[in-house]
Amino acid sequence: MASRLYSPALRNVFKSLGVNWTVALKGRRSFSATPRWNLQTRDMNEEHLSSLRVNQCRLLEDIHYTCQWGTGERWGDAPTETGMSRLALSDSDRQARDWFVETTESLGCKTTIDSMGNIFAIRPGLKNDKAPTFAGSHLDTQPTGGRYDGILGVTAGVEMLRVLNDNWVETEYPVGVVNWTNEEGARFPKSMVSSGVWAGSISLEDAHNLREVHPGTATMASELARIGYLGKTPSSYKSIPMAAHFELHIEQGPLLEMANKKIGIVKGVNAYRWFTVRVQGRDAHTGTTDLKSRADALLTAAKLILHSHRLATANNALASTGILHLTPGSTNTVPGSVTFSLDIRAGKDETVDKMTQLIERDFPAIASGSNILNSQEGCTPSLPLSVSITQDFNSAAINFHDTCISCVKEAAASVLGLEKVDALTREMVSGAGHDSVYASKRCPTSMIFIPSREGISHNPREFSTEEDCALGAQVLTQSVVRFDRLRAEGKI
Amino acid sequence: MASRLYSPALRNVFKSLGVNWTVALKGRRSFSATPRWNLQTRDMNEEHLSSLRVNQCRLLEDIHYTCQWGTGERWGDAPTETGMSRLALSDSDRQARDWFVETTESLGCKTTIDSMGNIFAIRPGLKNDKAPTFAGSHLDTQPTGGRYDGILGVTAGVEMLRVLNDNWVETEYPVGVVNWTNEEGARFPKSMVSSGVWAGSISLEDAHNLREVHPGTATMASELARIGYLGKTPSSYKSIPMAAHFELHIEQGPLLEMANKKIGIVKGVNAYRWFTVRVQGRDAHTGTTDLKSRADALLTAAKLILHSHRLATANNALASTGILHLTPGSTNTVPGSVTFSLDIRAGKDETVDKMTQLIERDFPAIASGSNILNSQEGCTPSLPLSVSITQDFNSAAINFHDTCISCVKEAAASVLGLEKVDALTREMVSGAGHDSVYASKRCPTSMIFIPSREGISHNPREFSTEEDCALGAQVLTQSVVRFDRLRAEGKI
Repeated sequence: MASRLYSPALRNVFKSLGVNWTVALKGRRSFSATPRWNLQTRDMNEEHLSSLRVNQCRLLEDIHYTCQWGTGERWGDAPTETGMSRLALSDSDRQARDWFVETTESLGCKTTIDSMGNIFAIRPGLKNDKAPTFAGSHLDTQPTGGRYDGILGVTAGVEMLRVLNDNWVETEYPVGVVNWTNEEGARFPKSMVSSGVWAGSISLEDAHNLREVHPGTATMASELARIGYLGKTPSSYKSIPMAAHFELHIEQGPLLEMANKKIGIVKGVNAYRWFTVRVQGRDAHTGTTDLKSRADALLTAAKLILHSHRLATANNALASTGILHLTPGSTNTVPGSVTFSLDIRAGKDETVDKMTQLIERDFPAIASGSNILNSQEGCTPSLPLSVSITQDFNSAAINFHDTCISCVKEAAASVLGLEKVDALTREMVSGAGHDSVYASKRCPTSMIFIPSREGISHNPREFSTEEDCALGAQVLTQSVVRFDRLRAEGKI
Repeated sequence: MASRLYSPALRNVFKSLGVNWTVALKGRRSFSATPRWNLQTRDMNEEHLSSLRVNQCRLLEDIHYTCQWGTGERWGDAPTETGMSRLALSDSDRQARDWFVETTESLGCKTTIDSMGNIFAIRPGLKNDKAPTFAGSHLDTQPTGGRYDGILGVTAGVEMLRVLNDNWVETEYPVGVVNWTNEEGARFPKSMVSSGVWAGSISLEDAHNLREVHPGTATMASELARIGYLGKTPSSYKSIPMAAHFELHIEQGPLLEMANKKIGIVKGVNAYRWFTVRVQGRDAHTGTTDLKSRADALLTAAKLILHSHRLATANNALASTGILHLTPGSTNTVPGSVTFSLDIRAGKDETVDKMTQLIERDFPAIASGSNILNSQEGCTPSLPLSVSITQDFNSAAINFHDTCISCVKEAAASVLGLEKVDALTREMVSGAGHDSVYASKRCPTSMIFIPSREGISHNPREFSTEEDCALGAQVLTQSVVRFDRLRAEGKI
């Protein structure tokens, strides 16, 4: 281990902290008890790596402190037992962003805001001529979301910065934390839109013109400008390149908890495809129209939703409807028209393709009266209805980068102990989309999952234990440092 | 046949018309070509009755003239091929009401407006010491309604007045036309509320306090006052008694058209019951929650809606869901909670009771996973969900009055011809509620149906042919006159 007392990079960190360098060296600033004074990743051995300890209390304090902005529905008695409702680019999102900028700058980072409001906080390295290695996620939430989805990944990134500072770690190249805008797609209806723009997969214009779902007056561009986060730096991997992107996230599913695992080593992301299905029948009076004279769009939609579930069961896929609108919407009028969303997912692209084919074949047939998979059993034959199916979004299965996956595996082994790592980790595929999907198109990427209680997410009751959050943050920190060490060693 | 040249009642009619009685008697006023000059119902034989001819063009002119107020969505090229959007107590409803008052007064009626804005136009009879026989319906429409529902019944009543005047008919007792307020319940959410107040079934206070659905600022009382139709006469069968209530209406269903029938002789109204069903599951991420770990409230609602249809099919009943709300409403969130309306109808109270029992037994069982009627076939067993079922409204089956039904039957036979009456009429039960439901609680009542094209109603495309409208008006006119004749003969 080399000790470099006068690292220019660390000096920059301290300078931006407002810390007198000489005073700092004299040890008056209360960093952690770690005795090292300038540890370079290139010199770190396994012992050094495992000594980078996350401060669990401090991490949880950051999580809950930032959840004062956009606090959601209460589900328990404890102060932190509420959900979150922090829609992207709302006033509460602005407050969380301000905290992120102030905090990372106070930790020695330089922050850059791009034209999608993505915030990149970069901590200088020994050499600054190459792209930083990033940890990243998002601070926005679903309207009835929880305290962990996205928020954990960003606050764990901040905790990583604190741990690096505490331990006087100097990375070979810069490391950073990124807060991506509107990952949820809840307010502006395109998930991961801002990492998508950064990756060049979505045009800036399309993204800027996205209109909020309710009440529909503002666009992303107008809200970015309103809250002061319309940055001048073009949102692009060309302007702000990344050496790698690591994302810590709650699993949002039940698998880790059910198997008593602590860390999910995420090797990729499920393929998924979103559709809008429109069923066109005919409005009719509920009291005067006998069953056979109806073209009941809601009854047909019920058959189609049930059918999509049966197809998913038969094909080892997922099928879900989260939105349904009907017209005209009166107790005594049979709905003439129903529109619903359909979300199809599977581990393989071929399975999603097959589900798509089956749906496109079966839905119109069922609407016109065919008894596919007994869908008409016990029903009165009615007038035929028409169905149109529009594909809104397609995300092919993603395979993450082997080097990143290895870093996470090794970090998990270090954090959990070699003897326990197999029992406590699980390789898995993410069922949800994440900003890492777009990041992976432009840089080596992987993800780390921790258990979600009962698999509940997008719900105020979403919960992960403090220990699991800290474990995840520790694996994240080590993964970033390990990746930087590989770079320092010229191995990547 | 007696001819009474100096009837005091007819003199009143002419006086209110501003017609000089002597001049009228000299035949200068152009009434129809009927040569009679003062025909009393008590003296009318079948030939006289069948000579009371409705003027088809004039009736349709009234219908379409009044549809200038509140014209709705266009569906065809002809000037009259639009729907209607005349919500109760709106400005356009006020204009239609003004027309009704002016027109019936110009035809010799005295109008009374009660505290619910119901308008009673009464044409004097030979004797005026007993209650009038009424034709009645309503001028308000659904927000996306048609030109015939309600409007036909009122304009046919006006045509009846014109025919009586044309033919110098003097009824034994007064006859009248009533326009009931807010029958649709579309703006103020209680159907038939004003005939309900008149009948003593709904309190005036509850009705006056009904708040409009959108935007929710006005009440019935404030809107009645605003448009000048808050009458001083108490809305009650005690203040404004009726000897009988006949209502001409479009069928709003397909049965007459499908059977090539012209007149429906309505013997009563279906029993119906409205429920709100709440399904409680758990919000979950669509991508990360495998099918067996879900409590998908919308998938369960789909099974329940389908099941209600199967129960209706098996029990010769109707089951319909016209409203469905889900939360949280995001493409990638499995809905944790769904609320939907359920409208159950049948000809007999016992059938509605049985359907209620089956639904209350089966819905919670299906939500918790029971495979009732194969409702879980091909599905992945999931977490259990809970269901609550609230009854919102109950309307027992109504049997109309035998004497009124006989009058309609005899009128139909006279209008259609004895040889054709069986082929062209059908006895039926109304599937929809009408003001006649409440009227029937306080006076002998029945209804007359005419075919609706394709059974479409509560829809801009609602349509009945001019011939059918005129046939219906003719049967209505004769029914009222026949009822008055029975009164004159002391038979009722």
